[in-house]
Amino acid sequence: MAASMDRPTITTVAVVGAGVIGRSWALLFARAGCETRLHDRDAAQADRARRWVADVLADEASAGIRTAADAVACIARVSVVATLGEALTGAGYVQESAPERLDVKRELYAEMDGAAPPDAILGSSTSTFDMTAITAGLAGATRCVVAHPVNPPHQLPVVEVLGGQATDRDVVTQTAAFMASVGQRPVVLERFVPGFVLNRLQFALVREAMSLVQRGVASVDAVDAVVRDGLGLRWALMGPFGVADTNADGGIRAYYTGHEQLVTDLMNDLGPTPTIDAALVEELGRGVDAMLGGSERAEMRRWRDRMIARLRALKAGDPPPDIAAAASGPARPPSTVASIAEE
Amino acid sequence: MAASMDRPTITTVAVVGAGVIGRSWALLFARAGCETRLHDRDAAQADRARRWVADVLADEASAGIRTAADAVACIARVSVVATLGEALTGAGYVQESAPERLDVKRELYAEMDGAAPPDAILGSSTSTFDMTAITAGLAGATRCVVAHPVNPPHQLPVVEVLGGQATDRDVVTQTAAFMASVGQRPVVLERFVPGFVLNRLQFALVREAMSLVQRGVASVDAVDAVVRDGLGLRWALMGPFGVADTNADGGIRAYYTGHEQLVTDLMNDLGPTPTIDAALVEELGRGVDAMLGGSERAEMRRWRDRMIARLRALKAGDPPPDIAAAASGPARPPSTVASIAEE
Repeated sequence: MAASMDRPTITTVAVVGAGVIGRSWALLFARAGCETRLHDRDAAQADRARRWVADVLADEASAGIRTAADAVACIARVSVVATLGEALTGAGYVQESAPERLDVKRELYAEMDGAAPPDAILGSSTSTFDMTAITAGLAGATRCVVAHPVNPPHQLPVVEVLGGQATDRDVVTQTAAFMASVGQRPVVLERFVPGFVLNRLQFALVREAMSLVQRGVASVDAVDAVVRDGLGLRWALMGPFGVADTNADGGIRAYYTGHEQLVTDLMNDLGPTPTIDAALVEELGRGVDAMLGGSERAEMRRWRDRMIARLRALKAGDPPPDIAAAASGPARPPSTVASIAEE
Repeated sequence: MAASMDRPTITTVAVVGAGVIGRSWALLFARAGCETRLHDRDAAQADRARRWVADVLADEASAGIRTAADAVACIARVSVVATLGEALTGAGYVQESAPERLDVKRELYAEMDGAAPPDAILGSSTSTFDMTAITAGLAGATRCVVAHPVNPPHQLPVVEVLGGQATDRDVVTQTAAFMASVGQRPVVLERFVPGFVLNRLQFALVREAMSLVQRGVASVDAVDAVVRDGLGLRWALMGPFGVADTNADGGIRAYYTGHEQLVTDLMNDLGPTPTIDAALVEELGRGVDAMLGGSERAEMRRWRDRMIARLRALKAGDPPPDIAAAASGPARPPSTVASIAEE
């Protein structure tokens, strides 16, 4: 269950596309010890991304999360390169985070497949597309794989890993192993479905949340409170199946046996997809305004980010019994997270 | 947004029904400083519940979470009484946690309405029934209200508060204020819907989670990992609307504007209610077995409980900016939770 980070299984990586997602990958790879080539068609964008990486690392050094020497070493691992060819030369893994347009991705994959070393894996941050569609007709489709992070990956460890129809199973396995080796939590999907697993689960909850507000059952703040002071406290530790298993003495089998009809009736009563129009969006906006009571969004984001880091440190410091039992010693958490715990 | 606990707004309470939920309420009220009368038709059950309350408080004293003197004072506040009449005499608030059967609840409410002081509020832990149905034809329906906790309430703060058609609005307000004063997080619902808000949101997620496993998209462990190492890390801090608001620079309005069709399509693609039969339950059971890798369920529960306490302490120690700004000083967390932080 846990991510562990020893040494990256692939030591030279290319980050193609240096927006919010790409720069976060660059930071993550550099922290994990990878030589990281950062490329963007917009050279200024790549420069800004490298500066952002350096700023985050400098802040971490100031806060005592890492030594100045370590911060400098991490920064030194990120090099901005002007061409795709330079980025890919010698790379064992490529993380593509280009704009979310199929034509852009298809063109880029054709180019990358021509320029990358024959054994390099070409991973995509896409949240939308099937790798089968991105690589249709591509010679190197076997080495192309989706590695979809949560935004931003350096804060949230889950990465959804899935191949297209032509992808080698081995490439999926190697990508998952590489992600684990840089401290992420790879989740392998057996096949493509729209939204993958993460966004399907997220929007299943959001659909009902919107429906309850739209139908006047509860306010935006009330719905959010049920999650942040109720369901979310468990879901930070266990998924829906783990929760069901701990809810009954006899585990998940006992939890559902005898309640099939009750659960089925409740699921069938859930609201349909609401009409997401300007009126609903404005209603939600006003609800959030009331909930926040004038606090700054930037301040809320900083709070969220530091709390997520602390929460990860809490879990790394006291892993669930299955992980603790599986490890020879205490589970070794990603170093950055462990360090933040010492704040 | 935060629960604060100064002095309980109602100082004498009755807990009717001493099962897993009732005993947890008794512990919670006693810790908060309420004189607590505990009654169950099965006298042995009430005795066991009081012993459980005493054991938990003794453990907290051993662990240094509270002083021995405080533990003794809390235990002394819980008295087991033989009759419903004794439980209700002088009580300002009654928390009913009887078995989840409408006929049982209806009969009990008629009895309680006859025995309770005229100004006492009669709250129910029901997770299923509309107070309108429980109190049909009852003279004191105006003072009857649902106060539905998450199991167990002494660990998870959310309480859903809603009246029936006859309930005084003032009773809803007073119940919410009382719950906040004993350290819970009341969430007021405007009207009854099956499952209230919490179970509707929970089973919206569970429905899609089951569907993904049943369709072979991902394993039980993979689905759970997406929640516990991804979505759940945010949901422990913010609900779905708060998350959307921090995801875009322009907040929730910007997050949804322009993506209406994408979101609608994804919501429309979500799976239907799966057939919850023995085969699915066994598939989920095997998936959980594989995920847990032989760890004991009891050990997992202890881990969950101590991690939830730490997580609440983490949030109480660094509340979100809106709460911090609203408070004159640092927000004051429930005392038991703050103490656990000092472990």
